[in-house]
Amino acid sequence: MQSKLFAKTRKEAPKDETAVNAQLLIQAGFVNKDSAGVYTFLPLGLRVLSKIENIVREEMNAIGGQEMLMSALQPKENWQATTRWEGLDILFKVISRHGSEYALGPTHEEIVTPAALNIISSYKDLPLAVYQIQTKFRDEPRAKSGLLRTREFRMKDLYSFHKDEKDLDKYYNKIAIPAYQKIYKRMGLEAFLTEADGGTFSKFSHEFQVEIENGEDIIYICNPPAGGCGLAKNKEIFKDNDECTNCGKTEWREANASEVGNIFPLKNKYSKSFNLIYTAEDGTKKDVIMGCYGMGTSRLMGVLAERFHDQDGIIWPESVAPFKVHLIELNNASAKNIYEDLIKHGVEVLYDDRELSPGEKFADADLIGIPYRVVVSEKTAEQNKFEVKKRDEDKIKLVDKEELFRIIRMNS
Amino acid sequence: MQSKLFAKTRKEAPKDETAVNAQLLIQAGFVNKDSAGVYTFLPLGLRVLSKIENIVREEMNAIGGQEMLMSALQPKENWQATTRWEGLDILFKVISRHGSEYALGPTHEEIVTPAALNIISSYKDLPLAVYQIQTKFRDEPRAKSGLLRTREFRMKDLYSFHKDEKDLDKYYNKIAIPAYQKIYKRMGLEAFLTEADGGTFSKFSHEFQVEIENGEDIIYICNPPAGGCGLAKNKEIFKDNDECTNCGKTEWREANASEVGNIFPLKNKYSKSFNLIYTAEDGTKKDVIMGCYGMGTSRLMGVLAERFHDQDGIIWPESVAPFKVHLIELNNASAKNIYEDLIKHGVEVLYDDRELSPGEKFADADLIGIPYRVVVSEKTAEQNKFEVKKRDEDKIKLVDKEELFRIIRMNS
Repeated sequence: MQSKLFAKTRKEAPKDETAVNAQLLIQAGFVNKDSAGVYTFLPLGLRVLSKIENIVREEMNAIGGQEMLMSALQPKENWQATTRWEGLDILFKVISRHGSEYALGPTHEEIVTPAALNIISSYKDLPLAVYQIQTKFRDEPRAKSGLLRTREFRMKDLYSFHKDEKDLDKYYNKIAIPAYQKIYKRMGLEAFLTEADGGTFSKFSHEFQVEIENGEDIIYICNPPAGGCGLAKNKEIFKDNDECTNCGKTEWREANASEVGNIFPLKNKYSKSFNLIYTAEDGTKKDVIMGCYGMGTSRLMGVLAERFHDQDGIIWPESVAPFKVHLIELNNASAKNIYEDLIKHGVEVLYDDRELSPGEKFADADLIGIPYRVVVSEKTAEQNKFEVKKRDEDKIKLVDKEELFRIIRMNS
Repeated sequence: MQSKLFAKTRKEAPKDETAVNAQLLIQAGFVNKDSAGVYTFLPLGLRVLSKIENIVREEMNAIGGQEMLMSALQPKENWQATTRWEGLDILFKVISRHGSEYALGPTHEEIVTPAALNIISSYKDLPLAVYQIQTKFRDEPRAKSGLLRTREFRMKDLYSFHKDEKDLDKYYNKIAIPAYQKIYKRMGLEAFLTEADGGTFSKFSHEFQVEIENGEDIIYICNPPAGGCGLAKNKEIFKDNDECTNCGKTEWREANASEVGNIFPLKNKYSKSFNLIYTAEDGTKKDVIMGCYGMGTSRLMGVLAERFHDQDGIIWPESVAPFKVHLIELNNASAKNIYEDLIKHGVEVLYDDRELSPGEKFADADLIGIPYRVVVSEKTAEQNKFEVKKRDEDKIKLVDKEELFRIIRMNS
C-alpha cells in the first residue's frame, strides 16, 4: 500500500546533490541521505538492492563460491602485516576505549587470508573460492557522485585460492570474467572488460566499465564498429597507438564510463604477508596463489539509475525493479480486487491507494519507474478492463484481466 | 562437499575462549575469531545465521514491518541532538581525515527518527513500522561470552510510529510481543517475557530471556509450577515480596538466563529530539509516539548453541540447522547417487566425501550437529540400504531409500 509506504516522493530533486543517480533515487524515495556519502536504503531502495545482490549471489554460487560474512572491525595488526595500515589513505580507523585499534574494512584480504590458515594446508584443499556481500567503508575525500562514490557502501567480494598461477589464470579468465558478464547482462547492462594497472604484483588488473554520459572514468574501447574486439583500457594505462592486448588492433574509441567491477590477480601478495602456504603433491611447501573479485552492489544501483532514466524518472530493468506492477486506482474506483488477484498469483505489486489526482499519481509512477503501470478508473471498471502501460513505452492498452496477466507474465 | 568446505573442525576447543557457545562454534567450524569480540561467520555459520534471520524477517513482515537498511556511519550531530554522543559509553566513534565525525551505530533511533521527518506529517501516515537486519557495533569493555557479547554483531531492530500511547500500547503488547514469542518458538526456544528498567521515559521496558545454565543474567520467574503466570522480572528491578504485575502472585523462582530480545516503549523521547510531529485529525500538532524492538540474531545463534548441545557437540533445531542431512560415505563406498537424489528433491545436504576414518567422521558429525546423519558403507551399499540416525537420538535405523525420504521429510 503506497499510502503507508515508508517513502514519499518529492516535488523536486534535492538541491544538495549534483549526481543524477542521487537526485533520482532521493526524489523517488529509494534512498535517504544521512550525511555526505552515506545513504540509508528505504524499503523501495532495499528491494532493488536485494534483487541486485541476489543476482550476484546466484552467479557466485554457480562458480563454486561459498558465501560467508566477514567482520568490518579488522585488527590493526593484520593491516600492519600487509603495510596497508599507513599505506591506504581511505582507511577509516577506529580506536576502542579499551585499547584496541581497528580498520573499518574497505576490503577483506586482511581477514580472509589469515582465516584460510586454519583451512588450507594441502594441495587437496585447493582450489577454493569464498565470497561475501556486505557493508564496506572508505574515507572518501570527495563524496559527490551519489551512490557511485560513498563512505559506506555494499559490495560483493570473492577471493579464490589456487595451487599455482596457471590455475588462477584459468579461474580468473574462464570462470570469473564470464560470470561477471552474465551478471551485468541479467541487469540489462553492457560492461566492457577494461585493462587497468596491475600494481606491483601483476601486469594488469581488470575493471568492468559501463558507458555512462556522466561517467567519472574515461576508457578507450577497441572499437567493435571498426572491427575491434571490445576490450578496453582505462585512462591511467592507455597510450596512443597502443595495440589491443587481445586482437592487436589500434583503433580506439574514447568513452565516459563508470566502473561496476574490479578484479585482481593477487598471486602470492597476501599469502606471503600471512605465511599462507600449502604442501604440494611432491611434499614441498608453496605459497597459496590468490585472486580477488570485487563488485559494488550499491554502486551498481547508482549506475542503473544513471543508465536507465528519462526526464520523468527512473526506468528499472525488470530483473531489478522494486515491484513488477505499479497498480493505480483513480478517484472513486477501487483496485482492491485485481490487487489481491495479482498478489495471489505471486506478482509483486505496489498498490497506489493514495487520495491524489491522476496527474500526481502518474508523475510518481514515472519517477519511481516500475516496469508495468496498471490503472483502474471508473471508466475502466465499468468495462471490467484495465489500462496497462510499460514504463519505457508510450502506448496505453485497454485490456481484460486475462490479457493483463498475459502481458505481465510475458517476460517472467 | 565437505572436502572443499571453507571450514575445518578442530580436535580441541580453542583455549582462548571460556564461553561454551564460542568453544563449540569455533571447534565445529561455524565462526572464526578475528579479535576479541569480533567473529567472522564461515559458510556453515552464515547458513545458520541466515536461517535465524529469515525466521525473524518473516515474522516482522507478518506484523506489517517494512524492511529497510540504515547506515552504520551516523553523524555526530544526530547523537548530540539526543545527548547520547557523550552519554553512551559503548559508542565507537570514527573520525574522518576529512573532518566528519561519526558514531558507529549500536542502534538506530538517531537515523530512523530524522528519516521519518520526510515521511510522517499527518495522522493519515500513522501507524507505521520499519525494521532492518544489520551489523551493529558496541565498544564492549569485556568480550568474554562468545557470540553473546561482541563488539560487532548482527541485529534486527524494528521501530514503530503511532499517533498516541494507546496505539503504541496495542502494537507493543498485542502485536510485537506475540510475534517475538512466535520467533523463539520456531527456533525451539522458550523465552520468558521479563520486565526491565524503563529508563526515565517509561515504567518498564521488556526483555525476552531464555534459561541457560551459564546465562549471564539472573531473572525471577512468576513460577508456573507454583501456579504463576510465567512473567519474569530481571535482577535490576526485582525486590523480595514483589507482586507479579500480571497475576498478583508472589512466588518467584530464580534462574540463570540469557537475553534474546529487548523492547522499549520510547514514547516521545526521540521524536522530541528531532521534532518529529504530525497534524492530528483536529488540526493540532502532536509528537509522534515511538516504540523500539531489538533482537540480536548473532546472539541468538550463540544462545542456541548454549541451549542445544551435549558433550559431543551442537544439536541444532531443524529450523535453523545449516543442513538437514549430514551424508557420510565410509571407506570404499560412494554416497554420490543418494546425494544427487536428495539434492534433486530439495533436501539440504552436507556430503562428507573426505578420506577419514569412520570414527573421525562420526565425531565431526556430532560436533557440527546436523539433525539427520545418513551413512553409506560397503555393508549398507550391498543391501541397497542406508543407516540413518537423528543427532538427538541414539537409535540407528537401517532403511531403504523410500523409508529414508519418509523419515527426513516427516517434519518438513
